[in-house]
Amino acid sequence: MAQLIEQLISAVGKAAVITDPRDAAPYATDWRKRYFGKPLAVVKPGSTAEVAAVVRLCAASGTGIVPQGGNTGLCGGATPDAGGGQIVLKLSRLNRIRAIDPVNNTITVEAGCVLANLQQAAVAAGRLFPLSLAAEGSCEIGGNLSTNAGGTAVLRYGNARDLVLGLEVVLPDGQIWNGLRALRKDNTGYDLKQLFVGAEGTLGIITAAVLKLYPRPSARTTALVALASPAKALDFLSHMQDACGDRVTGFELMSAFCLLLVARHFPATRLPLKEDYPQYVLLELSDTASAENLDAALQGALAKAAERGLILDAAVAASGAQAAALWALRENIPEAQVLEGQQIKHDISVPISSIAEYIAVTGAELQRAFPGVRMVTFGHLGDGNLHYNIAPPEHADENAFMARASEVSRVVHDSAARFGGSISAEHGLGQYKREEILRYKSPLEMDLMRRIKAALDPQGIMNPGKVL
Amino acid sequence: MAQLIEQLISAVGKAAVITDPRDAAPYATDWRKRYFGKPLAVVKPGSTAEVAAVVRLCAASGTGIVPQGGNTGLCGGATPDAGGGQIVLKLSRLNRIRAIDPVNNTITVEAGCVLANLQQAAVAAGRLFPLSLAAEGSCEIGGNLSTNAGGTAVLRYGNARDLVLGLEVVLPDGQIWNGLRALRKDNTGYDLKQLFVGAEGTLGIITAAVLKLYPRPSARTTALVALASPAKALDFLSHMQDACGDRVTGFELMSAFCLLLVARHFPATRLPLKEDYPQYVLLELSDTASAENLDAALQGALAKAAERGLILDAAVAASGAQAAALWALRENIPEAQVLEGQQIKHDISVPISSIAEYIAVTGAELQRAFPGVRMVTFGHLGDGNLHYNIAPPEHADENAFMARASEVSRVVHDSAARFGGSISAEHGLGQYKREEILRYKSPLEMDLMRRIKAALDPQGIMNPGKVL
Repeated sequence: MAQLIEQLISAVGKAAVITDPRDAAPYATDWRKRYFGKPLAVVKPGSTAEVAAVVRLCAASGTGIVPQGGNTGLCGGATPDAGGGQIVLKLSRLNRIRAIDPVNNTITVEAGCVLANLQQAAVAAGRLFPLSLAAEGSCEIGGNLSTNAGGTAVLRYGNARDLVLGLEVVLPDGQIWNGLRALRKDNTGYDLKQLFVGAEGTLGIITAAVLKLYPRPSARTTALVALASPAKALDFLSHMQDACGDRVTGFELMSAFCLLLVARHFPATRLPLKEDYPQYVLLELSDTASAENLDAALQGALAKAAERGLILDAAVAASGAQAAALWALRENIPEAQVLEGQQIKHDISVPISSIAEYIAVTGAELQRAFPGVRMVTFGHLGDGNLHYNIAPPEHADENAFMARASEVSRVVHDSAARFGGSISAEHGLGQYKREEILRYKSPLEMDLMRRIKAALDPQGIMNPGKVL
Repeated sequence: MAQLIEQLISAVGKAAVITDPRDAAPYATDWRKRYFGKPLAVVKPGSTAEVAAVVRLCAASGTGIVPQGGNTGLCGGATPDAGGGQIVLKLSRLNRIRAIDPVNNTITVEAGCVLANLQQAAVAAGRLFPLSLAAEGSCEIGGNLSTNAGGTAVLRYGNARDLVLGLEVVLPDGQIWNGLRALRKDNTGYDLKQLFVGAEGTLGIITAAVLKLYPRPSARTTALVALASPAKALDFLSHMQDACGDRVTGFELMSAFCLLLVARHFPATRLPLKEDYPQYVLLELSDTASAENLDAALQGALAKAAERGLILDAAVAASGAQAAALWALRENIPEAQVLEGQQIKHDISVPISSIAEYIAVTGAELQRAFPGVRMVTFGHLGDGNLHYNIAPPEHADENAFMARASEVSRVVHDSAARFGGSISAEHGLGQYKREEILRYKSPLEMDLMRRIKAALDPQGIMNPGKVL
């Protein structure tokens, strides 16, 4: 151990190796404060070559490596175990934007680049990097790629996986794979990069990536739409996509109870509709063409939707400030939940067409098993992804309820599986759902994953105890 | 051998096992008639279970399996070797559309479904399946996925890879992996499906897929645009994307010489422009919104492009017939090449921003080495993908020129590599480029591919001698 520390220090410098447990503490705990690890050291290499040197030393000594970016993950994927034998490999110093090419619509960035900085670099070049999520001010692109992050722009631009053209990866033996291709088309063998995306650092360490950029939408329009039910919201989604195609960039479902929580805990909240309704959709359209055309398209589509009985009411933002106020309704839900008290949280997906039935069936099942529970149902309806969260009955004993979390989650996850869904739509498995997934994935698929793992990381040193 | 044939017959029926060499001949040769194999048998299973049974028999006897769909591939990837010991596994009988879900925007199809039939099923459901290529009347979706087909809609909708949500695969040991998920988001481990897409049947046999559908564009507009140079075409591409975003669905570059060949061999050809120009772009916009708005957007963008000096002239199709006539200019190029005589063909890609320089540098290098060669330069400029084909000098000895094909291709491919490009953008490797790729891919990347291959197909029975 002492020898490895010495070697790490000669590889990356004394300042880049943290061994004091007090200094290491921020890196040893996950964002939700559910996992508390004890690393041998936190190592902060400053270049891909230094990452490779660190990995070679760990490979030689059989030391487990836990890659970590902004440490904002929700499943403990970047937290070391408590054994004191693993190192945290912190990538934040690899934070350069290496190149930007507005004609090829690509940006080449290092893993430690904070997502918001990457977005800003794209804007400065007159382009859009569409990945957008709550943690964007501190999460890092290497982590976004390793967890295949989702967020609010998936409906139009896809998950993180869909934004990658090339990767640079330090492999578990310390070799550097330069797959930094900036090509839209390359059919010369297996698509290795997609193996590393979403692997949560279990197959290697992403150190840099070539990512897609897009034209910047010049027009945006936002509306809060009231509906009778999730089923109507589905019909409304199809209606909007038929009418406006890819202009539909945001389609977020929020139940009345979600907005009630927001209003309760953010007293300045004002809903721009006169009455209360059972369900709401936060709708955003964007386009490169004129704002007038976009507004006209939205108004026309809303009028037709009302005629067809799909929607009950709608308020279109008349200014950027009004649009921001509408988005705040959606964005304040997680914080309102925290202020309300403890809840059991989920991140499920089902086929979009099954969303309404999923909500109805699962809700009924939960009410039978846990009478009075309050459903905090919201999420990316356009992606089939719900944050299907469960609050205890009003005035119930919160701790007693939370003690039954695994029973509640079992109902939620089993139901998703029956609809052909996923128990982790955008958050990954990490250590949090590593056991849970064994219930839902076939032994054959687990075996295929293990064979891939063994082929690339035969020593098993890459992020041990995560994913599989 | 005789025993295996007996076993195959009991697994799939006598009518589904072809052993007579005359009957097997159509399956033993590739579409370009460059490879002539000699299979032990051609086996035509009628279901996934039968595919699995065939694979188990082959695995037990160590028999090589060559999966084949519509047999329209351009790199000999579906042609058996001449040793008489491999079976061709023909998937055409697995041709059902299993399900279509217009709300989820997905279609579930079997591998043998002809691409055009799949497109039509989508249309019947009011949706678009965007994959489109010259062979669509006979190619099959399993082959499209196994080769990660490109085509004319990649700019807007991506390659075949980008259209896949789930797969069903018969693995090299005959187990069936049911990965037929219809989810937009699923972060529960490695993205196994992307390994099989583009693997050209070397890792397993795709038997069914869940594919993405899109809203059907209701408006389309097509223009032939004249430009001074490929560099101007690049500027014009950026200009159009800034102005019209994803409405830009087709952007095909054609040199003056390409259109000269078309005019020479299709005498009815009429160019709708008054003068001759050095370069042309076939431009297509499409949208779900009104045709009037789309036409106005095109006219406005063309006027600005002319003002900015990006383009020299343009003709917008005023009817569907005119649009078809413009597309015929592009689509008749391959046939015009055949009528002109033999040519050395390529399928390269480079970063889009490097296309103009690639054309200039590579053309100059070829003229130095092979004076008088005629460049038939056309392709999917918006994807950075050129069919950079070379015709012999006028009146030269064609066979003497073709005998130097590998020298010519070396120049073309080395140049693409220097620009960070690919020697096979959309056609795959098959057996045609299997040796060639070793010059351009790093030994480390080849090693990673071989490790994956060994992990999934340790016996090496899946499409031996292809890709790697």
